[in-house]
Amino acid sequence: MTPPSTPALQALAERIQLFLDNHQLQEAIGLLQTEHPSDIADLLESFSEEDRVLLFRLLNQEDAAEVLDEISAEATLELIEAVPDSHIADLLEAMPADDAAALLGDLSEARADDILALVEPEEAAEIGRLLAFPEYTAGRLMNPDVVRLRKQWTVEHTLTFLRSLDPDTETLAYLYVVDRHDRLVGVLPLRTLVTHAPDTRVEEIMEPDVVSVSVLADQEEAARLVSQYDYFAIPVVDQEGHLAGMLTHDDVVDILEDEFTEDFQRMGGSQPLDDDYLVTPIGTVFQKRVGWLLILFMTEMLTGTVMRVFEHELSSVVALAFFIPLLIGTGGNSGSQTTSTIVRAIAMGEVRLKDGGRLVWHESRVGLMLGVVMALVGFIRALLWDTGMDLAITVALALFFIVLWANIIGSLLPVLAERLRVDPAVISGPVMSTLVDATGLVIYFTLARHIMNL
Amino acid sequence: MTPPSTPALQALAERIQLFLDNHQLQEAIGLLQTEHPSDIADLLESFSEEDRVLLFRLLNQEDAAEVLDEISAEATLELIEAVPDSHIADLLEAMPADDAAALLGDLSEARADDILALVEPEEAAEIGRLLAFPEYTAGRLMNPDVVRLRKQWTVEHTLTFLRSLDPDTETLAYLYVVDRHDRLVGVLPLRTLVTHAPDTRVEEIMEPDVVSVSVLADQEEAARLVSQYDYFAIPVVDQEGHLAGMLTHDDVVDILEDEFTEDFQRMGGSQPLDDDYLVTPIGTVFQKRVGWLLILFMTEMLTGTVMRVFEHELSSVVALAFFIPLLIGTGGNSGSQTTSTIVRAIAMGEVRLKDGGRLVWHESRVGLMLGVVMALVGFIRALLWDTGMDLAITVALALFFIVLWANIIGSLLPVLAERLRVDPAVISGPVMSTLVDATGLVIYFTLARHIMNL
Repeated sequence: MTPPSTPALQALAERIQLFLDNHQLQEAIGLLQTEHPSDIADLLESFSEEDRVLLFRLLNQEDAAEVLDEISAEATLELIEAVPDSHIADLLEAMPADDAAALLGDLSEARADDILALVEPEEAAEIGRLLAFPEYTAGRLMNPDVVRLRKQWTVEHTLTFLRSLDPDTETLAYLYVVDRHDRLVGVLPLRTLVTHAPDTRVEEIMEPDVVSVSVLADQEEAARLVSQYDYFAIPVVDQEGHLAGMLTHDDVVDILEDEFTEDFQRMGGSQPLDDDYLVTPIGTVFQKRVGWLLILFMTEMLTGTVMRVFEHELSSVVALAFFIPLLIGTGGNSGSQTTSTIVRAIAMGEVRLKDGGRLVWHESRVGLMLGVVMALVGFIRALLWDTGMDLAITVALALFFIVLWANIIGSLLPVLAERLRVDPAVISGPVMSTLVDATGLVIYFTLARHIMNL
Repeated sequence: MTPPSTPALQALAERIQLFLDNHQLQEAIGLLQTEHPSDIADLLESFSEEDRVLLFRLLNQEDAAEVLDEISAEATLELIEAVPDSHIADLLEAMPADDAAALLGDLSEARADDILALVEPEEAAEIGRLLAFPEYTAGRLMNPDVVRLRKQWTVEHTLTFLRSLDPDTETLAYLYVVDRHDRLVGVLPLRTLVTHAPDTRVEEIMEPDVVSVSVLADQEEAARLVSQYDYFAIPVVDQEGHLAGMLTHDDVVDILEDEFTEDFQRMGGSQPLDDDYLVTPIGTVFQKRVGWLLILFMTEMLTGTVMRVFEHELSSVVALAFFIPLLIGTGGNSGSQTTSTIVRAIAMGEVRLKDGGRLVWHESRVGLMLGVVMALVGFIRALLWDTGMDLAITVALALFFIVLWANIIGSLLPVLAERLRVDPAVISGPVMSTLVDATGLVIYFTLARHIMNL
């Protein structure tokens, strides 16, 4: 149970709850059904599981189908558990095939097969074809219901043809022109169609150079193309160039958000979760994290080795140890400021491989400036702790070099990762700070040895 | 100079370069102009600055306008510097008003005014109106050229009206219905228009409940609405409900990408940069980072204070110090695994405030599992370093509690930030690890004191 996101919805939720408490089901569902499906989903989440399932089963089919697409992954799975398979099958028929495939893809294979067996054969075949494509490909996500035109048609004929279609068709923004072998030969944006005279022929106004993606293309590649060329959508073709479907703008927004979530999680040093956080079992969360944690632990052991090498210095001046977390913390912080900026700049295409040299030069200068400031502050702090002028100078110089070094490493690493075709987000967060920790200690103790004559 | 992104464009760039070297300008520009404006932008970036400016000035106006919108921020500023103001003014006239406003918004105010003075008065007034809205509002970003219908029109009349418009109009996907005071009373998706019979009246098929945003609404709020309801676009209205413009899907994708970038940079402990990385002067980068770095330095000084409190333990067993970076590093890593996952889940709306308790419970169990594994590995490592059984037990127990603690803190902090209406991304990265550093040391030394009888 989560409260609705706006005060207006909150008030509505309370009124519906009152009807439910008085067993006035008809009134409750009537009130609910006046809202946009996205808001219905929001409202449903605010009720107890029992009420949620009850209201959901009473929704009209069209709304219920959209709600299932909009509601949180957790609630979706819960509703599917609580509702008979035949009812789910009806809802799948009311959904675009791509949304139906996405829903079934989240269930166990056995469960998906059971439900699919109850769906109308034609619709089931279409959903099955989508599910046959590997996850995260354009084929898996595409909407196969695209509008096909022939190039000899006139604008008037096309308009008459469009009037025979379901007004809810999602995919009308782009009309695709195919030859008699169903091969894609052109695209006609709907806005171009409606701004031309009725007797204009499709081939005169269609765009013959169509950018398309293969059914097996990675979803991220497809999303990048759409966002790069500022399209609403992109057609998907099979290996022989036959039109197979299209990716629409809402798919693209979803893909971009997913990819960003992955980057974010990788940056935090975890493998990306495949599902929404709250529906992912803790065993899976554990598995996604333990690997990296161990690898980082192993590399972090380098710091122990460094300290053992400098054991003599450390035991002669125990105060040296006081500054260790401060120094490696500051190094880690300035390094991650650098990497997070640069990883994102690479992802956005603002920075390319060739810019590597410039990047490092840019960051070295920022590092110089930050290093001077941190050295000054560290110097004053060390003096105030009364641990002696020599140690204060050591700490100040160490801070200067560590910050500068962290900025250089922090800009080199993502570029290096990109060149080695590793996702820069993986390298950038914890790996960077672990690396800076060990090298920072070497800088610190080496300075201490010379300045303090240890 | 950056190389084009695909081998095909690379080959084309080489052919164009050959023409340029032989002073065959006409051939070079002919070859360039066959490409999509986004690819022309890509190609232009691969030439020297001199060639780039030359080719850009020879492009036809329509392509040049689109290239200016597509090319990197750095190259845009460079081209604007190198091209006469009157030429830029012509290009602005060929652009949608929102893109023109965005371009001028990146220039100095004096420069923008000079150029605007050369733009046709009507177009200049429209651009000026957009620039009058604060940055990052819907009003600043909207496209004011929207299609206005009246509800008594028929489908046929509307189609005739549309044919009188420029086929390049970006904003045809949604037609807005206004009353005689230009107040928004309905929306008619273009696809609904074309799937209905010619004699249908607009008011029969329009959607009267229109979700709109105010001109002063934050851009992120507008983008979230569009992505939540799966719209292509959203209308923007002024304080009196008059239709002022619309935000289109490409604006929304741009906004979402900008917001991701901000979150990413905040997570790395830096204030977001307003512009593309490579065009941001290093002084600005320095300013955006130094504040956080200092604040974190101050909090990180806590660790020094903790160590001074335990100076006695530290000087009796110097080997205790060997494990300090390892312990706080592991705590920081497991904490940031947690926060990065949860910050993102909050941003995506997967998790809400009410889920706080469940979140912490979820993460505590993951922390228990990870803690056991890390304790085992740490125990073995400490034994192999031959620093004694007592220290090995201390390190193992410390690792267990620190990992558990980091997971709890890592899940509490973003929820707390959200409740206090601070951006969770700000809190999550460096703040979390700094906090875990100091508390981790207290755990470690307290365990050492008791287990090793110091």
